[in-house]
Amino acid sequence: MREFRRDPVIGRWVIISSERSKRPSEFKISQHQTDDKDLCPFCWGNEKFTPPEIISYRRAGTQKDTAGWWVRVVPNKYPALRVEGEVVRTGEGIYDKMSGIGAHEVIIETEHHDKELYQLEDKYAIDIFRAYRDRIIDLKRDIRFEYILIFKNSGAIAGATLSHPHSQLIALPMVPIRIKQELQGAKLYFDYKERCVFCDIISYELSCMKRVIFENEDFVAICPYASRFPFEVWILPRRHDPMYEDIQENELKNFTQIMKVINKKICFSLSNPPYNYLLHTSPLKSYNLPHYHWHLEIMPKLTGVGGFEWGTGFYINCVPPEEAAKFLMEVQ
Amino acid sequence: MREFRRDPVIGRWVIISSERSKRPSEFKISQHQTDDKDLCPFCWGNEKFTPPEIISYRRAGTQKDTAGWWVRVVPNKYPALRVEGEVVRTGEGIYDKMSGIGAHEVIIETEHHDKELYQLEDKYAIDIFRAYRDRIIDLKRDIRFEYILIFKNSGAIAGATLSHPHSQLIALPMVPIRIKQELQGAKLYFDYKERCVFCDIISYELSCMKRVIFENEDFVAICPYASRFPFEVWILPRRHDPMYEDIQENELKNFTQIMKVINKKICFSLSNPPYNYLLHTSPLKSYNLPHYHWHLEIMPKLTGVGGFEWGTGFYINCVPPEEAAKFLMEVQ
Repeated sequence: MREFRRDPVIGRWVIISSERSKRPSEFKISQHQTDDKDLCPFCWGNEKFTPPEIISYRRAGTQKDTAGWWVRVVPNKYPALRVEGEVVRTGEGIYDKMSGIGAHEVIIETEHHDKELYQLEDKYAIDIFRAYRDRIIDLKRDIRFEYILIFKNSGAIAGATLSHPHSQLIALPMVPIRIKQELQGAKLYFDYKERCVFCDIISYELSCMKRVIFENEDFVAICPYASRFPFEVWILPRRHDPMYEDIQENELKNFTQIMKVINKKICFSLSNPPYNYLLHTSPLKSYNLPHYHWHLEIMPKLTGVGGFEWGTGFYINCVPPEEAAKFLMEVQ
Repeated sequence: MREFRRDPVIGRWVIISSERSKRPSEFKISQHQTDDKDLCPFCWGNEKFTPPEIISYRRAGTQKDTAGWWVRVVPNKYPALRVEGEVVRTGEGIYDKMSGIGAHEVIIETEHHDKELYQLEDKYAIDIFRAYRDRIIDLKRDIRFEYILIFKNSGAIAGATLSHPHSQLIALPMVPIRIKQELQGAKLYFDYKERCVFCDIISYELSCMKRVIFENEDFVAICPYASRFPFEVWILPRRHDPMYEDIQENELKNFTQIMKVINKKICFSLSNPPYNYLLHTSPLKSYNLPHYHWHLEIMPKLTGVGGFEWGTGFYINCVPPEEAAKFLMEVQ
């Protein structure tokens, strides 16, 4: 079974994917990752352990699904959704469900099993973010999809099951509730002020310089004013653009630079913490929204998250973002 | 510093509470709990290690802040909010903040350091849920408060820092965003159907009996149709009532019974997993909402939650609720 089900109260869609299921007795919170390089399906030489690659950035003359790549995109071997089929919405008694159609891909970020982003050369690292763009552009042609989520779980506590650096992509036939809320909030602000709230955040943060960690020609990295987590970081493009896939070549270069700088600061200062990041970009069927502005949110996982946070969307953060920004700014 | 800050995009309030702060180098994900009974501030004889009690249910003739109680409510020693002061809303540049006013209390559920709810005698256990009611009724008189959250974190992975059974209460000067969304969704349903969505869920679940785990005269326990987590359980009162604090004496008895039954089923079948629960009840200044229905949501923490879930409010659940309900129903 792979289907979307809608919560009848708040309208949140959940993927029920029982092909991933285990017997109840097998449930354990996994804190372990596969760390044997010979067994790692994301290392050179082990390409046969993944489904055939979708795209790769590789040395001239090397063959598809063999060593020689530096960024490789493959379908998830245990996908939460399946690509084939139609998006069918049906009722089930008082409830609503939808067929579990979508794409679930893995972006293997490097051939090096143990390297963090900041340890990669720019000329290779840039293709990670190029792959994000290229996959969005390709999947956008599939009219069944409404949204593409690109995210990274790094470390077992952040949800990664393999330690080899990788990010993930999920294409969905609906816009996730959290993104909808962000779009609604940004629209409300725009309707009142006739300005993009993200553009205003960037300009205010650059004027007061209390929460800016790093900036380059095209991007700004800040600890957001209402950070949910200690050392939460947002990276925003200076140029108003709702869609990540519009990123230009010079911006890709500067995005790679700021991502590497922030990654290094987080790894050095917080002892290689587990972390998640998520790309926030426009729904696929929207076009040039004046009120939305793509950005990337990074959440180091330093403290446990209890019932309070889960049930309410209400967070307690014990590190003021001004202190976090000052600390991260000073770390080399 | 203890203040509320509002996310300028989606309007989510966050508590920034730096008196709980540590140096960045001290951040570690804590998987440990204090388990030494001599040091446990929630055990009999250690009452001096907590702030003075607010209320307790105790043996006749025993003194306040000494042994002899079976349920004891105290202020949190490290509160995220402070009780004294006015609720002041101010701007900070383009942002909005509010003074960190609120109450943060701990409900110590039993004098027994190691007992789960199902191991307590009914006559003592009932006073845990009576304490929830009594604290809401008392705090409701404080017109600064808009909402009271009552929740439990059990196990380090679920966010508990002490293993002695306890739940927590936080009184807030605003309604949390997640509860607002639930109220809005329930209102939308009511406006269309002129029926309470929760009443409809109960009656549909009792008619198809696919996700019902247990029921008694006053309550029904189900695995919800769009469960976010494996073995998620909701407990709903059969009688439409938006406010937990309206609970009647016979209902308190039956609520205690169903809570104990579900607690035992979860502990037995899933090997004492970490879990959270959260009471969903009406905002304090609403009265007899026809569209809202108090309930309690229990979330065992069996699998890690990755970036996908965090950033999107979108969940992948690998155990269909029908299977979870069947399994929990059969466990004695």
